[in-house]
Amino acid sequence: MNLFKTDEDLIRDFHNVWHPCTQMKDHETRPPLLIERAAGVHLFDADGNRYLDVIASWWVNILGHNHPRINQAIKNQMEKFSHVMFAGLTHKPAIDLAETLVNSSSPNLTKVFFSDNGSTAVEVALKQSLQYWVQTGNPEKKQFVYLKDGYHGETLGALSVCGSDLFRDKFEPVLMQNREVVGPDCFRCPYGLTPDSCQAECFEPMQKTLEQNHATVAAVIIEPLVQGAAGMKMYPPIYLKKLEEACNACDVHTIYDEVAVGFGRTGALFVSEHHGLQPTFLCLSKGITSGVLPLAATLTEEKIYAAFYDEFASMKMFIHSHSYSANALACAAANETLALLQEEGFMAGLQPKMDALKEGGRQLETLPWCGEFRQTGMIAAVELVKDRDRKEPFPWQQRVGHQIFLEGLKRGVYMRPLGNVVYFIPPLVIETNEIQTMIDTAYECIDKVLGGK
Amino acid sequence: MNLFKTDEDLIRDFHNVWHPCTQMKDHETRPPLLIERAAGVHLFDADGNRYLDVIASWWVNILGHNHPRINQAIKNQMEKFSHVMFAGLTHKPAIDLAETLVNSSSPNLTKVFFSDNGSTAVEVALKQSLQYWVQTGNPEKKQFVYLKDGYHGETLGALSVCGSDLFRDKFEPVLMQNREVVGPDCFRCPYGLTPDSCQAECFEPMQKTLEQNHATVAAVIIEPLVQGAAGMKMYPPIYLKKLEEACNACDVHTIYDEVAVGFGRTGALFVSEHHGLQPTFLCLSKGITSGVLPLAATLTEEKIYAAFYDEFASMKMFIHSHSYSANALACAAANETLALLQEEGFMAGLQPKMDALKEGGRQLETLPWCGEFRQTGMIAAVELVKDRDRKEPFPWQQRVGHQIFLEGLKRGVYMRPLGNVVYFIPPLVIETNEIQTMIDTAYECIDKVLGGK
Repeated sequence: MNLFKTDEDLIRDFHNVWHPCTQMKDHETRPPLLIERAAGVHLFDADGNRYLDVIASWWVNILGHNHPRINQAIKNQMEKFSHVMFAGLTHKPAIDLAETLVNSSSPNLTKVFFSDNGSTAVEVALKQSLQYWVQTGNPEKKQFVYLKDGYHGETLGALSVCGSDLFRDKFEPVLMQNREVVGPDCFRCPYGLTPDSCQAECFEPMQKTLEQNHATVAAVIIEPLVQGAAGMKMYPPIYLKKLEEACNACDVHTIYDEVAVGFGRTGALFVSEHHGLQPTFLCLSKGITSGVLPLAATLTEEKIYAAFYDEFASMKMFIHSHSYSANALACAAANETLALLQEEGFMAGLQPKMDALKEGGRQLETLPWCGEFRQTGMIAAVELVKDRDRKEPFPWQQRVGHQIFLEGLKRGVYMRPLGNVVYFIPPLVIETNEIQTMIDTAYECIDKVLGGK
Repeated sequence: MNLFKTDEDLIRDFHNVWHPCTQMKDHETRPPLLIERAAGVHLFDADGNRYLDVIASWWVNILGHNHPRINQAIKNQMEKFSHVMFAGLTHKPAIDLAETLVNSSSPNLTKVFFSDNGSTAVEVALKQSLQYWVQTGNPEKKQFVYLKDGYHGETLGALSVCGSDLFRDKFEPVLMQNREVVGPDCFRCPYGLTPDSCQAECFEPMQKTLEQNHATVAAVIIEPLVQGAAGMKMYPPIYLKKLEEACNACDVHTIYDEVAVGFGRTGALFVSEHHGLQPTFLCLSKGITSGVLPLAATLTEEKIYAAFYDEFASMKMFIHSHSYSANALACAAANETLALLQEEGFMAGLQPKMDALKEGGRQLETLPWCGEFRQTGMIAAVELVKDRDRKEPFPWQQRVGHQIFLEGLKRGVYMRPLGNVVYFIPPLVIETNEIQTMIDTAYECIDKVLGGK
């Protein structure tokens, strides 16, 4: 496995590159995989080894690698131009994309602001919310409410609404003072309820927080249905309905961070539109270009836009820009992605795959360490526990997930567990037999690491 | 000029798109230009009108639009793969780029962390600096020092080190508490010095700030030589030398934000390397792909990297990621950009262009409203004043720059003045005769707007 001593490229990687979310010392003995090509659901390394990309390269790759139609869309746009600045100038790829996003999302969302990644999509929503309150005479509304274990990106503004010490603790002293609320925890439900009997009783802390603090709260930010970085914690839509009612009653914005779950991942294009919800802001990125180019969008409603729309001298405009906003190549890739997702039969075609995932869950549940198998559309996860009855987690120092990751590599499956949670977010184009391979391999790896088999 | 009533695409733009740094109401009567193609230094709109892109689409377009070699590099990479996640995986385009950046920048800079835009490049530097101090036993070093009028991006962390009310004022209450210092102001030098007689006497406030506060200061962030968004305020390298000495003496990091000035813009690849300076962090973006795809990089030195390099269980790693980090298509474009910039003769070929710009400055100085013509390499600017002797500015409400912008459009030149400052940052491949056209047109537009001719 260790190419390190022989491969010149990996030595150059080690000397020059600082990889994200990586303890670089780990690469002393086990270098990263050197990827040479990718196609469909597979990655190929420099030695010709093939890996099933079951985490879709961090959620992004919806339609498979090297998709001929997406590649062609990029080439076609490149013949005209690749990029122009997006102030004073505009172009058809961005206009088409904005229109499609507006038409496909919740009916209240009418305006699209482009940026480059999920963090900036969130920062735009935070800033538009703050400036809205300043410009409508409520400057005291300047705090955000976020859920424990929530993840919304890592620029310092986005980080200030993340509810995880792992990401925050080194930076805590400089973060904006926002308000963390305990959210749903269905696997370890403190109310002892199940999805069938639940009426989102766990909304209570949020309800109280909003009632007590709405005068100073600008917005609540949330990952709808699935808290990804938290280990694919899932909760039912009723929580979101209650949140919408409470925020409307308290005059507080809702920011939906669908950066991870958007673009078909849950079985619908967007969680918000699918469940009839009307967030004030909708943040999108990752799957937007099907994983080929960086792009992000923040959608909002007319009421927000109107508070910035005035004579120039009012200085009410939204002063925020990134040079590569609405990059034309990325917009072209996004337009083709949406065209593919919206083709007749595409979404319906996910049903047998979701069924196969569910079936796979039954198989994984036979493992004695399977605390819970959970699934929302094309997102599935197994939370491994030391003791099933007491739901006792393995200590993080044991690096159970990392060991499973290494076993997966040996078997040609690229998993990247989060702590004790092994998860599956394959490209939506994965075939049911490939889902079976993925599940079988995960089963084998877990059994090997935890059962010593 | 107003295509708005007839053009369906522009109506769709108006209904769906929220443009960056734009008062959208301005577009009621004057829509943005609908760009259909671009080639070399020119943009072409849907009516076939041609515009000289003298601001290189917000600094980014170094080598001209639709460059065949850059397009080919993207196509070649696309045949292999477009993107894979950058944790656990790596690839040759990123490794090559990191190595080239390390080899071309100041010798102390050895590690490259990739992200997507200038704001994130800055956020990475801020966070790495903070975490370095936490992990080396100095958690009290958590403030940043920045210059008045400095600009470093608009995510909330980056914004907290910007020294301009225009960008900050709506968000002031939620920004990190950093420390603003008055920096150089050569046009209105309070010491009455000229570039020839100056020894950066204006470094005094920075010197005092560092002496008094170094125990709590993590880093000083600065735009070397040119403060772009401030209106192309320029200052001599001696200020940077003094800053380096003072920061070394006080154990404070230096963060060079070369997002705008990097990649040949000043006549050298990087300001820092060219002047023998050794910043702790170097932030790069914009020109890195010659304006075709979003990409950014933060370089740092071994001492910083080493403070994060340890056994996994130490939890000292840098936990920061963007899904599209080190996008392979963007890295391929960047590698070709650097290959072109580093070809023999390229940098030398800029000299006649810089001379032509200087010559153009003589011409613009004959205008009675020319307060100052200033130039650093391929960056030039005219600061217009109401009264030349008193250097009295035009009131911002007069929108002098905006009027000049509109006159430029009529004449096929896309300028975008900052307040009273008309600036020129054309693609480096501009020809001397095109520089002459640019200067002649600017002269005419200024004369028309201010002289009523």
